[in-house]
Amino acid sequence: MTAPRPNTPLLDTVDTPDDLRKLETAQLRQLADELRTEMIDAVGSTGGHLGSGLGVVELTVAIHYIFNTPDDRLIWDVGHQAYPHKILTGRRDRIRTLRQGGGLSGFTKRSESEYDPFGAAHSSTSISAGLGFAVANKLNGKPGKAIAVIGDGAMSAGMAYEAMNNAEQAGNRLIVILNDNDMSIAPPVGGLSAYLARMVSSSEYLGLRSLASKFAKKLSRRVHSGLEKAEEYARGMVTGGTMFEELGFYYVGPIDGHNLDHLIPVLENVRDSEQGPVLVHVVTTKGKGYDPAENSADKYHGVPKFDVVTGEKAKSKAGPPAYQNVFGETLAKLAETDKRICAITAAMPSGTGVDKFAAAHPDRSFDVGIAEQHGVTFAAGLAAQGMRPFAAIYSTFLQRAYDQVVHDVAIQNLPVRFAIDRAGLVGADGATHAGSFDVTYLASLPNFVVMAAADEAELAHMTYTAAEHDSGPIAFRYPRGNGVGVDIPETPELLEIGKGRIVRPETGEIEKGGKVAILSLGARLEEAKKAADQLEAKGLATTVADMRFAKPIDEEMIRKLAATHDVLVTVEEAAIGGLGAHVLTMASDEGLMDGGLKIRTMRLPDVFIDQDDPTKQYDQARLNAPHIVETVLGALRHNSAGVEEARA
Amino acid sequence: MTAPRPNTPLLDTVDTPDDLRKLETAQLRQLADELRTEMIDAVGSTGGHLGSGLGVVELTVAIHYIFNTPDDRLIWDVGHQAYPHKILTGRRDRIRTLRQGGGLSGFTKRSESEYDPFGAAHSSTSISAGLGFAVANKLNGKPGKAIAVIGDGAMSAGMAYEAMNNAEQAGNRLIVILNDNDMSIAPPVGGLSAYLARMVSSSEYLGLRSLASKFAKKLSRRVHSGLEKAEEYARGMVTGGTMFEELGFYYVGPIDGHNLDHLIPVLENVRDSEQGPVLVHVVTTKGKGYDPAENSADKYHGVPKFDVVTGEKAKSKAGPPAYQNVFGETLAKLAETDKRICAITAAMPSGTGVDKFAAAHPDRSFDVGIAEQHGVTFAAGLAAQGMRPFAAIYSTFLQRAYDQVVHDVAIQNLPVRFAIDRAGLVGADGATHAGSFDVTYLASLPNFVVMAAADEAELAHMTYTAAEHDSGPIAFRYPRGNGVGVDIPETPELLEIGKGRIVRPETGEIEKGGKVAILSLGARLEEAKKAADQLEAKGLATTVADMRFAKPIDEEMIRKLAATHDVLVTVEEAAIGGLGAHVLTMASDEGLMDGGLKIRTMRLPDVFIDQDDPTKQYDQARLNAPHIVETVLGALRHNSAGVEEARA
Repeated sequence: MTAPRPNTPLLDTVDTPDDLRKLETAQLRQLADELRTEMIDAVGSTGGHLGSGLGVVELTVAIHYIFNTPDDRLIWDVGHQAYPHKILTGRRDRIRTLRQGGGLSGFTKRSESEYDPFGAAHSSTSISAGLGFAVANKLNGKPGKAIAVIGDGAMSAGMAYEAMNNAEQAGNRLIVILNDNDMSIAPPVGGLSAYLARMVSSSEYLGLRSLASKFAKKLSRRVHSGLEKAEEYARGMVTGGTMFEELGFYYVGPIDGHNLDHLIPVLENVRDSEQGPVLVHVVTTKGKGYDPAENSADKYHGVPKFDVVTGEKAKSKAGPPAYQNVFGETLAKLAETDKRICAITAAMPSGTGVDKFAAAHPDRSFDVGIAEQHGVTFAAGLAAQGMRPFAAIYSTFLQRAYDQVVHDVAIQNLPVRFAIDRAGLVGADGATHAGSFDVTYLASLPNFVVMAAADEAELAHMTYTAAEHDSGPIAFRYPRGNGVGVDIPETPELLEIGKGRIVRPETGEIEKGGKVAILSLGARLEEAKKAADQLEAKGLATTVADMRFAKPIDEEMIRKLAATHDVLVTVEEAAIGGLGAHVLTMASDEGLMDGGLKIRTMRLPDVFIDQDDPTKQYDQARLNAPHIVETVLGALRHNSAGVEEARA
Repeated sequence: MTAPRPNTPLLDTVDTPDDLRKLETAQLRQLADELRTEMIDAVGSTGGHLGSGLGVVELTVAIHYIFNTPDDRLIWDVGHQAYPHKILTGRRDRIRTLRQGGGLSGFTKRSESEYDPFGAAHSSTSISAGLGFAVANKLNGKPGKAIAVIGDGAMSAGMAYEAMNNAEQAGNRLIVILNDNDMSIAPPVGGLSAYLARMVSSSEYLGLRSLASKFAKKLSRRVHSGLEKAEEYARGMVTGGTMFEELGFYYVGPIDGHNLDHLIPVLENVRDSEQGPVLVHVVTTKGKGYDPAENSADKYHGVPKFDVVTGEKAKSKAGPPAYQNVFGETLAKLAETDKRICAITAAMPSGTGVDKFAAAHPDRSFDVGIAEQHGVTFAAGLAAQGMRPFAAIYSTFLQRAYDQVVHDVAIQNLPVRFAIDRAGLVGADGATHAGSFDVTYLASLPNFVVMAAADEAELAHMTYTAAEHDSGPIAFRYPRGNGVGVDIPETPELLEIGKGRIVRPETGEIEKGGKVAILSLGARLEEAKKAADQLEAKGLATTVADMRFAKPIDEEMIRKLAATHDVLVTVEEAAIGGLGAHVLTMASDEGLMDGGLKIRTMRLPDVFIDQDDPTKQYDQARLNAPHIVETVLGALRHNSAGVEEARA
């Protein structure tokens, strides 16, 4: 980091939006340019979301200039485009700590600033939240508007539609700014996207581009004079916004989102309008103003550290393949001979590895957009008609489709396969993206089979096992990031449902005289093995099991381990209610603990864990090898009757 | 049941749609009339959903007449309007067993008939499922269309929008029939509803009404001749369907849904169209053809048994108030002095008791339509702006908003109050409506407080306690149906968070020398007390605790009970992962079981339980008093070391 910081004389005078609002309108262009430069430099040093923020630099400046933040409530949908907003709202001094442990979140966050009235990370929540703010102010007779800035990709989610359908009651207290960059993370899909594209490409829009500033002045007069009927106000600006109008909005746009001469007067008029709710359709370019981003396919959506001048991204260390790619490639290969296999992603083709599948089998690959609810029930329909669908959805996003998992898949016992990426703690994305709850919420469902992969070879086995499992729903979870470096078999194995494997001793057999058994579910297995080494060094014979299944659990194995060991410890990167709860429940049902067997469960703690290096996150969660050792020793030492102490 | 069955000579010849398709078109009117009569008679004897089915009698006849069911896949959204469909598809002989134990489901169900290709009960799933069927057929080169029939109320859910946004790929294999009766259960809300009303009330529709049959013939020629451009086909029929067209549909309508002379040719043309997907907008009257239903405010949405001639409904026994009303009235009263209290319902004002609140505080009551996702995040926005929002949502429907609960409420630690009705098993509505999972999926979330009411007085206390709890999210669950008959206090008590109460002994103190402690969560408390009676009769001193909280659990009480009793048994009407799992986890963490204490957990079993009388459902779930006794005796008898037998 020896390169000098960019020269930003005007930005240096702006700590908060109050400072910004003291500037002349004519100074805003320079401010925006400096803000863009600062942001590129900052993300170059930290990595993070770049393209989205670059696309809204002018919009960020214009909103804070026109609206009275934080009393007017500005809500950035998803929040990954809010880096310029963070720089302008008192957080510039920490902007180079983005997404790092103890640093700024990569999203908006209530605890971080009064300028973040509603945290985000999952998409499409902003209009609902904004409506809540607007209605609360209305009930309390307080001033203050809510401004929700939402991308066109986020608009594909049903939640945004539900909110728009309810927005009329907010009147002019709610302003939705549709940030239309024709990109969410991947190119968008669906009818809405096509519709927006038609609007933007229409000649009226092209005409408006050049006329917008004059146009805006005209609007301004109209509204202020109050001579025109309400309906004419916004509709006069319409070039095709009927869909939004049909839901009760006043539509304004499309507006060039990089032209401050257009943005400022339009937002000013919208602010002062007595009519509402208003939807302002703003067209932006993702990655705007930074050539390497504008020219890249994903617009530098999420990037590692990079060289600001060349755009060259820091190389990630060569190493084992990413789990997502092992999944995508395994599935693509299986699908060569199995024509029933389909893959579904919800706007995450690359993140889920479905892109690998799509490249080989485009007709059987479906990107439904940010629409997990639809995606899961669509998969259920495919399954009901004899296909073998894989719904590849991150653990945290599958939460969006929980009812569809219960109602359409589990109750009907339909063989939908769930490939659940980003299980456990996920590093820089923090609590909102952690995959903490899926084992709990899936393993409590009748009919479900729930697996967790300990390594990339296991993931290949589980992908194949899921493909062959036609008798009901089956899920398999695996972590974010790269595998542990084991060989991936040419031909995956068909796993027996509900059966774990003994990893240590290497014979794979449970030996008598064991003291401790560690029952691992998922990718904590490496830590479990390390812990076993340390326990063995203390003279404690330790068995390590990779349970593979959270449901059904391997009851036979548990009984055998219970009969031959003093302590069983379960370990999983999942919240309470997962493997540990299932083992305890079974063991107590059967009275396995009545004779002195001790069971301890290790799981994610009852807190949300902020972004950090994953190893540090697991330290905080107390799920690394030393914590396993400590738990075992504590259990051996502990005896409520006080008669036994650990031998070690 | 001495009244004679209605005279239905033509219907008597129709067992399946194959029979129906042999009839002349001119006979269909008579068939529809007989079908309506039969349905009224059947529901009069069983109770159930009446108005919805009456509204689609002609549509049901027309669809089966025109389409080749079951190869063409007919999917009724929600499914409570499918009674006429059941009568026509081989289930007439069982139609008087609807919603009864061992009888027909009140919804569509795959296991019941090949004519039910996709089960339903929760709304707004049909288009996604239909798209799955259509795409599977497309991939396999099979014939067969998917027809999704969805109400205007169900269209307010985001899931339906997500599906429509993805529908274009189905081409003419997907037909969506919008059954617009301007009613879901309550009158619909929102922009979409207003939009549909504008379309239907337009003069074009009135003109079309009389011209529809001619019009349909014209359409037929056009399509078959292939002379016209695709776009003109449907757009020529449009009277305002642009919103659907913008999402990629060909819009046809509005059509009078009770006029077979209109329905038959229009559906025939749609079936034969090379263009698609098509949305057919059909206007119907809920309760059609049965005056008492047509004239009632809720159109006899769900009814008890009734007298067919007079429409007089069977009186329910006088008794304790329904839980929902205790909640609604308590909240309304609290809101008289607390201006921050708001109530949110998702299209269930009466079912949740929010109607009682709305009557007193209309400005602070919000019916968001079938839009649980929006409803929860809207509540989060209200909470973030200082209000005290109560989201009153059935347990089963809150599943729809699970991600919003996690991401917008729990992670942000916002004090949204969740009033969760229909917790546990729910009787005639069966597995799809059971409230089985909420304790598991809420109590695993950091920051959450989760309560369950043992009776109606407890519900009043919990409503008040939730109102006063500003430090984070709080939920309280309670069963379907009526309370147990305890007095409801004038002034509810503020409960201490995380503290249970000892119900027996009546001193409220834990006594030494207890043998058995039953830890009850929620409304199984009555059964726990009965079980205690039986155990005491066997000489086993039994303590009964009403835990009140599933999170945080009363650890101090558990430690005391563990120290003074031989066996602890948890009882809850919730799936694995609830109170039992939390007690076991805490007890094993602390080594409470290491000294010989036995814990057993009683919970809902790992199966979906079909409709039946609730007492019988709980027999099947093994959660009634005899099962508690049996569990306790089993635990006392059981000892893996074989040294102890039960004394009783």
